[in-house]
Amino acid sequence: MPESLATPEPIQRLIEAFHRLPGIGPKSAQRLAYHLVRTSPQEAEGLARAIVEARERIHYCSRCVNLTERDPCAVCADPRRDQSTICVVEQPLDVLAIERSGIYRGVYHVLHGILNPMEGIGPEHLHIDALVARVAGGDVREVIMATNPSLEGEATVMYIQRVLAPHGVRVTRLARGLPSGADLEYADTMTLARALEGRQEL
Amino acid sequence: MPESLATPEPIQRLIEAFHRLPGIGPKSAQRLAYHLVRTSPQEAEGLARAIVEARERIHYCSRCVNLTERDPCAVCADPRRDQSTICVVEQPLDVLAIERSGIYRGVYHVLHGILNPMEGIGPEHLHIDALVARVAGGDVREVIMATNPSLEGEATVMYIQRVLAPHGVRVTRLARGLPSGADLEYADTMTLARALEGRQEL
Repeated sequence: MPESLATPEPIQRLIEAFHRLPGIGPKSAQRLAYHLVRTSPQEAEGLARAIVEARERIHYCSRCVNLTERDPCAVCADPRRDQSTICVVEQPLDVLAIERSGIYRGVYHVLHGILNPMEGIGPEHLHIDALVARVAGGDVREVIMATNPSLEGEATVMYIQRVLAPHGVRVTRLARGLPSGADLEYADTMTLARALEGRQEL
Repeated sequence: MPESLATPEPIQRLIEAFHRLPGIGPKSAQRLAYHLVRTSPQEAEGLARAIVEARERIHYCSRCVNLTERDPCAVCADPRRDQSTICVVEQPLDVLAIERSGIYRGVYHVLHGILNPMEGIGPEHLHIDALVARVAGGDVREVIMATNPSLEGEATVMYIQRVLAPHGVRVTRLARGLPSGADLEYADTMTLARALEGRQEL
Protein backbone atom coordinates (compact mmCIF):
# COMPACT_ATOMS: atom_id res chain seq x y z
CA MET A 1 0.00 0.00 0.00
CA PRO A 2 1.52 3.38 -0.94
CA GLU A 3 2.30 5.68 1.96
CA SER A 4 -0.43 8.10 0.91
CA LEU A 5 -3.03 5.34 1.41
CA ALA A 6 -1.67 4.35 4.82
CA THR A 7 -1.78 8.02 5.90
CA PRO A 8 -5.31 9.33 6.50
CA GLU A 9 -6.02 12.27 4.21
CA PRO A 10 -6.47 14.95 6.93
CA ILE A 11 -3.05 13.98 8.34
CA GLN A 12 -1.57 14.03 4.84
CA ARG A 13 -2.86 17.58 4.34
CA LEU A 14 -1.40 18.64 7.70
CA ILE A 15 1.96 17.09 6.75
CA GLU A 16 1.92 19.04 3.49
CA ALA A 17 1.06 22.30 5.27
CA PHE A 18 4.01 21.83 7.65
CA HIS A 19 6.32 20.81 4.82
CA ARG A 20 5.68 24.18 3.13
CA LEU A 21 7.20 26.03 6.11
CA PRO A 22 10.87 27.06 5.92
CA GLY A 23 13.32 24.54 7.40
CA ILE A 24 10.71 21.78 7.85
CA GLY A 25 11.67 18.65 5.89
CA PRO A 26 9.32 15.75 5.06
CA LYS A 27 10.29 13.75 8.15
CA SER A 28 9.80 16.67 10.55
CA ALA A 29 6.49 17.53 8.89
CA GLN A 30 5.32 13.95 9.44
CA ARG A 31 6.45 13.94 13.06
CA LEU A 32 4.75 17.29 13.77
CA ALA A 33 1.48 16.24 12.14
CA TYR A 34 1.30 12.94 14.04
CA HIS A 35 2.18 14.77 17.24
CA LEU A 36 -0.60 17.32 16.79
CA VAL A 37 -3.37 14.81 16.18
CA ARG A 38 -2.48 12.98 19.37
CA THR A 39 -1.50 15.73 21.78
CA SER A 40 -3.92 17.58 24.09
CA PRO A 41 -6.69 19.59 22.38
CA GLN A 42 -5.32 22.66 24.20
CA GLU A 43 -1.93 22.36 22.51
CA ALA A 44 -3.31 21.73 19.01
CA GLU A 45 -6.04 24.36 19.14
CA GLY A 46 -3.62 26.73 20.85
CA LEU A 47 -1.28 26.58 17.87
CA ALA A 48 -4.09 26.97 15.33
CA ARG A 49 -5.50 29.94 17.24
CA ALA A 50 -2.05 31.52 17.69
CA ILE A 51 -1.54 31.45 13.92
CA VAL A 52 -4.92 33.05 13.18
CA GLU A 53 -4.55 35.66 15.92
CA ALA A 54 -1.05 36.64 14.91
CA ARG A 55 -2.30 37.17 11.36
CA GLU A 56 -5.20 39.30 12.55
CA ARG A 57 -3.34 41.38 15.09
CA ILE A 58 0.07 41.96 13.52
CA HIS A 59 0.54 44.93 11.17
CA TYR A 60 3.40 46.99 9.78
CA CYS A 61 4.62 49.94 11.80
CA SER A 62 3.84 53.06 9.73
CA ARG A 63 7.29 54.49 10.56
CA CYS A 64 9.84 51.66 10.49
CA VAL A 65 7.80 48.94 8.66
CA ASN A 66 8.66 46.44 11.41
CA LEU A 67 5.93 44.01 12.48
CA THR A 68 3.90 45.32 15.39
CA GLU A 69 0.59 45.02 17.19
CA ARG A 70 0.31 48.76 17.95
CA ASP A 71 1.27 51.54 15.54
CA PRO A 72 3.83 53.02 15.98
CA CYS A 73 5.79 50.02 17.23
CA ALA A 74 7.35 49.80 20.70
CA VAL A 75 10.76 50.96 19.44
CA CYS A 76 9.48 53.93 17.42
CA ALA A 77 7.18 54.97 20.29
CA ASP A 78 9.91 54.81 22.93
CA PRO A 79 10.93 58.41 23.85
CA ARG A 80 14.35 57.14 25.03
CA ARG A 81 15.28 55.96 21.53
CA ASP A 82 17.31 58.29 19.32
CA GLN A 83 15.00 59.05 16.37
CA SER A 84 17.85 60.69 14.44
CA THR A 85 19.68 57.40 13.85
CA ILE A 86 18.04 54.79 11.60
CA CYS A 87 19.41 51.26 11.28
CA VAL A 88 18.30 49.65 7.99
CA VAL A 89 17.82 45.86 8.10
CA GLU A 90 16.46 43.20 5.77
CA GLN A 91 14.09 41.35 8.09
CA PRO A 92 12.21 41.79 11.38
CA LEU A 93 14.40 39.05 12.91
CA ASP A 94 17.45 41.24 12.23
CA VAL A 95 15.91 43.86 14.54
CA LEU A 96 15.77 41.26 17.31
CA ALA A 97 19.42 40.29 16.70
CA ILE A 98 20.56 43.91 17.01
CA GLU A 99 18.35 44.52 20.08
CA ARG A 100 19.97 41.49 21.71
CA SER A 101 23.38 43.17 21.41
CA GLY A 102 21.97 45.77 23.81
CA ILE A 103 24.09 48.66 22.51
CA TYR A 104 21.90 50.26 19.86
CA ARG A 105 19.76 53.21 20.99
CA GLY A 106 18.44 54.44 17.62
CA VAL A 107 15.43 53.29 15.60
CA TYR A 108 15.05 50.93 12.63
CA HIS A 109 13.82 50.64 9.09
CA VAL A 110 12.88 47.17 7.84
CA LEU A 111 13.21 46.60 4.08
CA HIS A 112 11.46 43.21 4.10
CA GLY A 113 13.87 41.85 1.53
CA ILE A 114 16.99 42.67 -0.42
CA LEU A 115 17.66 43.78 -4.01
CA ASN A 116 17.77 40.64 -6.13
CA PRO A 117 17.34 41.18 -9.89
CA MET A 118 17.57 37.41 -10.52
CA GLU A 119 14.42 36.91 -8.45
CA GLY A 120 12.78 40.05 -9.78
CA ILE A 121 13.07 41.96 -6.52
CA GLY A 122 13.67 45.62 -7.32
CA PRO A 123 13.77 48.77 -5.15
CA GLU A 124 9.98 49.18 -5.52
CA HIS A 125 9.47 45.99 -3.42
CA LEU A 126 11.62 47.11 -0.50
CA HIS A 127 10.00 50.05 1.34
CA ILE A 128 12.92 52.22 0.20
CA ASP A 129 10.60 55.14 -0.67
CA ALA A 130 9.43 55.15 2.96
CA LEU A 131 13.06 55.33 4.12
CA VAL A 132 13.80 58.23 1.77
CA ALA A 133 10.67 60.01 3.02
CA ARG A 134 11.83 59.62 6.63
CA VAL A 135 15.23 61.08 5.77
CA ALA A 136 13.69 63.85 3.65
CA GLY A 137 11.54 64.78 6.64
CA GLY A 138 14.71 66.09 8.31
CA ASP A 139 15.92 65.27 11.85
CA VAL A 140 17.78 62.14 10.63
CA ARG A 141 21.53 62.44 11.07
CA GLU A 142 22.73 58.94 10.31
CA VAL A 143 21.52 55.89 8.40
CA ILE A 144 23.34 52.68 9.41
CA MET A 145 23.13 49.99 6.72
CA ALA A 146 22.88 46.60 8.45
CA THR A 147 22.01 44.32 5.52
CA ASN A 148 23.64 40.88 5.39
CA PRO A 149 27.25 40.76 4.13
CA SER A 150 26.20 39.17 0.81
CA LEU A 151 26.39 40.33 -2.81
CA GLU A 152 22.72 41.33 -2.70
CA GLY A 153 23.28 43.07 0.63
CA GLU A 154 26.13 45.08 -0.91
CA ALA A 155 24.06 46.02 -3.95
CA THR A 156 21.29 47.21 -1.64
CA VAL A 157 23.75 49.32 0.38
CA MET A 158 25.02 50.97 -2.82
CA TYR A 159 21.53 51.66 -4.12
CA ILE A 160 20.31 53.19 -0.87
CA GLN A 161 23.49 55.23 -0.52
CA ARG A 162 22.81 56.69 -3.98
CA VAL A 163 19.16 57.58 -3.38
CA LEU A 164 19.99 59.14 0.00
CA ALA A 165 22.94 61.18 -1.33
CA PRO A 166 20.85 64.26 -2.29
CA HIS A 167 19.61 64.53 1.30
CA GLY A 168 23.09 65.00 2.76
CA VAL A 169 22.59 62.39 5.48
CA ARG A 170 25.51 60.38 6.85
CA VAL A 171 25.33 56.76 5.61
CA THR A 172 27.43 54.14 7.40
CA ARG A 173 27.51 50.37 7.46
CA LEU A 174 28.39 47.68 9.99
CA ALA A 175 32.08 46.86 10.30
CA ARG A 176 33.48 43.82 8.52
CA GLY A 177 36.16 41.67 10.07
CA LEU A 178 36.81 38.60 12.14
CA PRO A 179 33.84 37.47 14.21
CA SER A 180 34.45 37.35 17.97
CA GLY A 181 35.87 34.02 19.07
CA ALA A 182 36.81 33.07 15.50
CA ASP A 183 39.92 31.09 14.72
CA LEU A 184 42.13 33.06 12.33
CA GLU A 185 43.44 29.84 10.81
CA TYR A 186 39.94 28.91 9.66
CA ALA A 187 38.72 32.34 8.57
CA ASP A 188 37.73 32.47 4.88
CA THR A 189 39.83 34.62 2.56
CA MET A 190 37.12 37.25 2.06
CA THR A 191 36.70 37.75 5.80
CA LEU A 192 40.46 38.00 6.27
CA ALA A 193 40.77 40.45 3.38
CA ARG A 194 38.07 42.66 4.91
CA ALA A 195 39.67 42.41 8.35
CA LEU A 196 43.01 43.56 6.90
CA GLU A 197 41.47 46.41 4.88
CA GLY A 198 39.58 47.59 7.93
CA ARG A 199 42.49 47.31 10.38
CA GLN A 200 42.45 49.91 13.13
CA GLU A 201 45.10 51.98 14.88
CA LEU A 202 45.86 50.82 18.42
CA MET B 1 14.93 46.64 25.35
CA PRO B 2 14.47 42.97 26.27
CA GLU B 3 13.59 40.68 23.39
CA SER B 4 10.09 40.10 24.74
CA LEU B 5 9.34 43.82 24.36
CA ALA B 6 10.73 44.00 20.83
CA THR B 7 8.57 40.99 19.85
CA PRO B 8 4.86 41.82 19.55
CA GLU B 9 2.85 39.67 21.93
CA PRO B 10 0.80 37.72 19.33
CA ILE B 11 4.07 36.72 17.64
CA GLN B 12 5.55 35.80 21.01
CA ARG B 13 2.60 33.50 21.70
CA LEU B 14 2.98 31.90 18.26
CA ILE B 15 6.70 31.35 18.92
CA GLU B 16 5.85 29.66 22.22
CA ALA B 17 3.22 27.44 20.58
CA PHE B 18 5.76 26.29 17.97
CA HIS B 19 8.46 25.82 20.60
CA ARG B 20 6.23 23.30 22.41
CA LEU B 21 6.27 20.99 19.35
CA PRO B 22 8.78 18.12 19.29
CA GLY B 23 12.08 18.93 17.58
CA ILE B 24 11.38 22.68 17.26
CA GLY B 25 14.02 24.73 19.09
CA PRO B 26 13.70 28.41 20.03
CA LYS B 27 15.37 29.66 16.82
CA SER B 28 13.21 27.52 14.54
CA ALA B 29 10.08 28.57 16.45
CA GLN B 30 11.01 32.22 15.92
CA ARG B 31 11.69 31.70 12.21
CA LEU B 32 8.39 29.81 11.71
CA ALA B 33 6.36 32.44 13.56
CA TYR B 34 7.85 35.35 11.61
CA HIS B 35 7.35 33.42 8.38
CA LEU B 36 3.68 32.76 9.10
CA VAL B 37 2.77 36.37 9.88
CA ARG B 38 4.28 37.49 6.58
CA THR B 39 3.42 34.72 4.16
CA SER B 40 0.23 34.52 2.07
CA PRO B 41 -3.05 34.30 4.01
CA GLN B 42 -3.70 31.02 2.17
CA GLU B 43 -0.59 29.39 3.60
CA ALA B 44 -1.15 30.59 7.18
CA GLU B 45 -4.87 29.87 7.30
CA GLY B 46 -4.28 26.60 5.46
CA LEU B 47 -2.01 25.39 8.26
CA ALA B 48 -4.38 26.54 11.03
CA ARG B 49 -7.31 24.86 9.27
CA ALA B 50 -5.34 21.67 8.61
CA ILE B 51 -4.59 21.37 12.34
CA VAL B 52 -8.24 21.84 13.37
CA GLU B 53 -9.55 19.49 10.66
CA ALA B 54 -7.07 16.75 11.44
CA ARG B 55 -8.14 16.91 15.08
CA GLU B 56 -11.82 16.73 14.15
CA ARG B 57 -11.59 14.01 11.53
CA ILE B 58 -8.94 11.63 12.86
CA HIS B 59 -9.98 8.82 15.21
CA TYR B 60 -8.57 5.53 16.41
CA CYS B 61 -9.30 2.41 14.36
CA SER B 62 -11.46 0.16 16.57
CA ARG B 63 -9.41 -2.87 15.50
CA CYS B 64 -5.73 -1.88 15.31
CA VAL B 65 -5.84 1.46 17.22
CA ASN B 66 -3.98 3.18 14.38
CA LEU B 67 -5.05 6.71 13.47
CA THR B 68 -7.68 6.78 10.75
CA GLU B 69 -10.41 8.87 9.22
CA ARG B 70 -12.74 5.90 8.58
CA ASP B 71 -13.25 2.98 10.96
CA PRO B 72 -11.95 0.35 10.35
CA CYS B 73 -8.78 1.85 8.88
CA ALA B 74 -7.63 1.30 5.29
CA VAL B 75 -5.28 -1.54 6.29
CA CYS B 76 -7.80 -3.41 8.47
CA ALA B 77 -10.53 -2.98 5.83
CA ASP B 78 -8.34 -4.24 2.97
CA PRO B 79 -9.49 -7.79 2.03
CA ARG B 80 -6.05 -8.52 0.57
CA ARG B 81 -4.35 -8.14 3.97
CA ASP B 82 -3.72 -11.23 6.05
CA GLN B 83 -5.84 -10.73 9.18
CA SER B 84 -4.19 -13.70 10.91
CA THR B 85 -0.82 -11.91 11.29
CA ILE B 86 -0.63 -8.90 13.61
CA CYS B 87 2.45 -6.68 13.75
CA VAL B 88 2.64 -4.80 17.08
CA VAL B 89 4.26 -1.34 16.93
CA GLU B 90 4.74 1.56 19.33
CA GLN B 91 3.57 4.45 17.16
CA PRO B 92 1.50 5.18 14.05
CA LEU B 93 4.68 6.35 12.30
CA ASP B 94 6.13 2.85 12.77
CA VAL B 95 3.24 1.53 10.64
CA LEU B 96 4.31 3.88 7.86
CA ALA B 97 7.92 2.72 8.13
CA ILE B 98 6.92 -0.93 7.80
CA GLU B 99 4.51 -0.18 4.95
CA ARG B 100 7.37 1.56 3.12
CA SER B 101 9.34 -1.70 3.16
CA GLY B 102 6.57 -3.08 0.95
CA ILE B 103 6.91 -6.68 2.12
CA TYR B 104 4.42 -6.93 4.99
CA ARG B 105 0.94 -8.23 4.09
CA GLY B 106 -0.56 -8.66 7.57
CA VAL B 107 -2.32 -6.12 9.80
CA TYR B 108 -1.13 -3.99 12.73
CA HIS B 109 -1.74 -3.19 16.37
CA VAL B 110 -0.55 0.22 17.62
CA LEU B 111 0.31 0.40 21.34
CA HIS B 112 0.67 4.21 21.40
CA GLY B 113 3.61 3.97 23.75
CA ILE B 114 5.93 1.56 25.44
CA LEU B 115 6.17 0.16 28.97
CA ASN B 116 8.10 2.67 31.04
CA PRO B 117 7.74 2.35 34.83
CA MET B 118 10.00 5.37 35.37
CA GLU B 119 7.50 7.56 33.54
CA GLY B 120 4.53 5.75 35.05
CA ILE B 121 3.49 4.09 31.81
CA GLY B 122 2.07 0.65 32.62
CA PRO B 123 0.29 -1.98 30.50
CA GLU B 124 -3.06 -0.29 31.19
CA HIS B 125 -1.93 2.72 29.11
CA LEU B 126 -0.95 0.71 26.04
CA HIS B 127 -4.03 -0.85 24.37
CA ILE B 128 -2.67 -4.27 25.31
CA ASP B 129 -6.12 -5.50 26.42
CA ALA B 130 -7.39 -4.80 22.92
CA LEU B 131 -4.52 -6.87 21.47
CA VAL B 132 -5.28 -9.78 23.81
CA ALA B 133 -8.95 -9.54 22.85
CA ARG B 134 -8.07 -9.72 19.15
CA VAL B 135 -5.92 -12.82 19.76
CA ALA B 136 -8.55 -14.40 22.06
CA GLY B 137 -11.10 -13.90 19.28
CA GLY B 138 -9.29 -16.68 17.38
CA ASP B 139 -8.08 -16.55 13.74
CA VAL B 140 -4.75 -14.97 14.74
CA ARG B 141 -1.77 -17.21 14.00
CA GLU B 142 1.20 -14.93 14.59
CA VAL B 143 1.97 -11.76 16.54
CA ILE B 144 5.13 -10.01 15.33
CA MET B 145 6.62 -7.72 17.97
CA ALA B 146 8.11 -4.68 16.20
CA THR B 147 8.82 -2.37 19.13
CA ASN B 148 12.05 -0.35 19.08
CA PRO B 149 15.24 -2.21 20.05
CA SER B 150 15.48 -0.41 23.42
CA LEU B 151 15.29 -1.57 27.04
CA GLU B 152 11.66 -0.44 27.23
CA GLY B 153 10.93 -2.12 23.89
CA GLU B 154 12.38 -5.39 25.24
CA ALA B 155 10.35 -5.17 28.45
CA THR B 156 7.21 -4.61 26.39
CA VAL B 157 8.00 -7.65 24.24
CA MET B 158 8.42 -9.82 27.36
CA TYR B 159 5.21 -8.54 28.92
CA ILE B 160 3.10 -9.08 25.82
CA GLN B 161 4.65 -12.52 25.24
CA ARG B 162 3.55 -13.47 28.77
CA VAL B 163 -0.03 -12.24 28.49
CA LEU B 164 -0.44 -13.91 25.09
CA ALA B 165 1.03 -17.26 26.22
CA PRO B 166 -2.31 -18.75 27.41
CA HIS B 167 -3.76 -18.20 23.93
CA GLY B 168 -1.22 -20.43 22.20
CA VAL B 169 -0.44 -17.88 19.49
CA ARG B 170 3.00 -17.74 17.85
CA VAL B 171 4.89 -14.62 19.02
CA THR B 172 7.96 -13.49 17.02
CA ARG B 173 10.04 -10.37 16.88
CA LEU B 174 12.03 -8.49 14.24
CA ALA B 175 15.57 -9.76 13.62
CA ARG B 176 18.50 -7.95 15.22
CA GLY B 177 21.79 -7.52 13.43
CA LEU B 178 23.81 -5.20 11.25
CA PRO B 179 21.72 -2.60 9.41
CA SER B 180 21.99 -2.73 5.60
CA GLY B 181 24.85 -0.60 4.34
CA ALA B 182 26.44 -0.39 7.79
CA ASP B 183 30.20 -0.36 8.28
CA LEU B 184 31.21 -3.26 10.51
CA GLU B 185 34.15 -1.26 11.83
CA TYR B 186 31.79 1.34 13.25
CA ALA B 187 29.02 -0.95 14.53
CA ASP B 188 28.42 -0.63 18.29
CA THR B 189 29.25 -3.65 20.46
CA MET B 190 25.60 -4.44 21.25
CA THR B 191 24.68 -4.55 17.57
CA LEU B 192 27.70 -6.73 16.79
CA ALA B 193 26.88 -9.06 19.69
CA ARG B 194 23.32 -9.47 18.43
CA ALA B 195 24.53 -10.01 14.87
CA LEU B 196 26.86 -12.79 16.07
CA GLU B 197 24.22 -14.44 18.27
CA GLY B 198 21.72 -14.37 15.42
CA ARG B 199 24.14 -15.58 12.73
CA GLN B 200 22.53 -17.67 10.03
CA GLU B 201 23.53 -20.79 8.10
CA LEU B 202 24.50 -20.11 4.48
